Amino acid sequence: MNTSDRLLEQISGALSALSYPVCPEGLYEPVAYVLGMGGKRIRPMLMLMAYSLYRDDTEKVLPAAVGLETYHNHTLLHDDLMDRADMRRGKPTVHKRWNDNTAVLSGDVMLILAFRHYLSCTCGHKDEMLGLFARTAQEICEGQQYDVNFESRTDVSVEEYLEMIRLKTSVLLACAAKTGALAAGAPEAEAEALYAFAERIGLAFQLQDDYLDVYGDPAVFGKKIGGDILCGKKTFLLVSALGRASVSQRDRLLALLAAGTMPPAEKIRAVTALYDELDIADVCNEAIGRFYAEARDFLERLDVPAERKEMLWDYVTALLGRSR
Amino acid sequence: MNTSDRLLEQISGALSALSYPVCPEGLYEPVAYVLGMGGKRIRPMLMLMAYSLYRDDTEKVLPAAVGLETYHNHTLLHDDLMDRADMRRGKPTVHKRWNDNTAVLSGDVMLILAFRHYLSCTCGHKDEMLGLFARTAQEICEGQQYDVNFESRTDVSVEEYLEMIRLKTSVLLACAAKTGALAAGAPEAEAEALYAFAERIGLAFQLQDDYLDVYGDPAVFGKKIGGDILCGKKTFLLVSALGRASVSQRDRLLALLAAGTMPPAEKIRAVTALYDELDIADVCNEAIGRFYAEARDFLERLDVPAERKEMLWDYVTALLGRSR
Repeated sequence: MNTSDRLLEQISGALSALSYPVCPEGLYEPVAYVLGMGGKRIRPMLMLMAYSLYRDDTEKVLPAAVGLETYHNHTLLHDDLMDRADMRRGKPTVHKRWNDNTAVLSGDVMLILAFRHYLSCTCGHKDEMLGLFARTAQEICEGQQYDVNFESRTDVSVEEYLEMIRLKTSVLLACAAKTGALAAGAPEAEAEALYAFAERIGLAFQLQDDYLDVYGDPAVFGKKIGGDILCGKKTFLLVSALGRASVSQRDRLLALLAAGTMPPAEKIRAVTALYDELDIADVCNEAIGRFYAEARDFLERLDVPAERKEMLWDYVTALLGRSR
Repeated sequence: MNTSDRLLEQISGALSALSYPVCPEGLYEPVAYVLGMGGKRIRPMLMLMAYSLYRDDTEKVLPAAVGLETYHNHTLLHDDLMDRADMRRGKPTVHKRWNDNTAVLSGDVMLILAFRHYLSCTCGHKDEMLGLFARTAQEICEGQQYDVNFESRTDVSVEEYLEMIRLKTSVLLACAAKTGALAAGAPEAEAEALYAFAERIGLAFQLQDDYLDVYGDPAVFGKKIGGDILCGKKTFLLVSALGRASVSQRDRLLALLAAGTMPPAEKIRAVTALYDELDIADVCNEAIGRFYAEARDFLERLDVPAERKEMLWDYVTALLGRSR
């Protein structure tokens, strides 16, 4: 079994071993339900992988890894409530299966449980880990608020968009990686490089997601193509297109997105044609490549054996589904 | 200026001095709004007063006091959302003034900010303070869930009711008092006695609240009499009455509470008459007196100068609005 499979098994084992109070079941059942939905456990994986660049006793940082995954699932629970999303990973979301109030309260207790998991860590540098976690959680709220604000705006710049996704998704990956390094007692500069590494990986992931929504192979992507176009979501493709468009192209694009009665397939085709006119696929791929290269550079700087770096690199490239 | 006025001024000063990031304003404006609504700041006051039993440099524990008040206001924000309450302290609640999603997200960030305030403390025993805070926050979620569960039940026992209000309201007062003692470096037994003291005070407060809803002087109470009766709320009076009632009294009481078309004043009069038949006012006053006496006993045990104990006792008796 290779290292990353072994670490994933360690995380799955720790998550399955979690037990919650039996009462009140209306509070704790949804917590177990959400954490039992599965997922790739990317954040705890990054934490354990960063830790294992320096030390092998990864069980020491496991409570923080479980805390971060609990926190992540808290954000999914509350985001699904705010987005009125009915399904996640093929199952009804908590506010659908139970109700809105259960989603609020069980989500709150998951945030508290995340802190309690962190507090139960017996590794060193706990104060820094907790400080980083709390700051990151605050940033993620900011990212979520910017995302909401962007819904009603048509003048979002590429820079603003990148800052929003950095806050909403990348800082959590960055926090995971840096926490692993801190817990392992790595020097501050190494921990910071791992933060920057995972932050760039997070940006590349999100841009790839935006790209695949339009240019992906539906058989591989696993979601219907064009979903973001149909709901008028601000994506890297859309904000880049609005930024590069001439006045007439911009008017056409905004008119298309506002067209409520146009058949879905036609809308997707027309918006994609405009993206093609503006070379948005290339623009997006270049940005992904840039973040990917920056991530690689930060990884190179680490003062750890090359084969340990490769393990981490192999893991993130496998997630991104390609090697550049 | 006496000690408690000075401490309240210190707390008010610390809360007014708080500043939040300017952006995104949709996230932070509601936070400042809720914390700016005022209130008696009972929890930070208990923390500082407990601290000042042992030490005078109360500014050391101020970040935790601000954290606990921020946390308390987070619970008010999310509880108001769940209860669909329109007003608090004469102002529209956050979900009314903004919207539900703002209430969820700004409430979440307040919970995170509460932990960040705690983390910024420079006093000793921070780990124990944080552990107690996180455990308490989890208990309060449990109390809120039990409160929700009780709405649809008519077989809630007095013991269950007391455990619910202990979790929902008393443990936070207890946490406040114990945290002050921990931060001041008081011995564990003293910190525990202060926990038990404030827990009993919290129970007495809640029972007094239940009592005044029916037997209070509307001019003094500040709320309309009988509100709990009209919304069928499980209170100490109601669960005690249901527990003491004969089969026929119980049937009458449940029929009265379920009577949707009865004029409000008539319903209040009829339920109060049933309470009177069952001596519920005496039962409630006895319970308040018992918790009050227990609190006093725990205070007596403390190994601190008598005049410092009296300052704390005077503060809580003034809040309770009477001396027994």
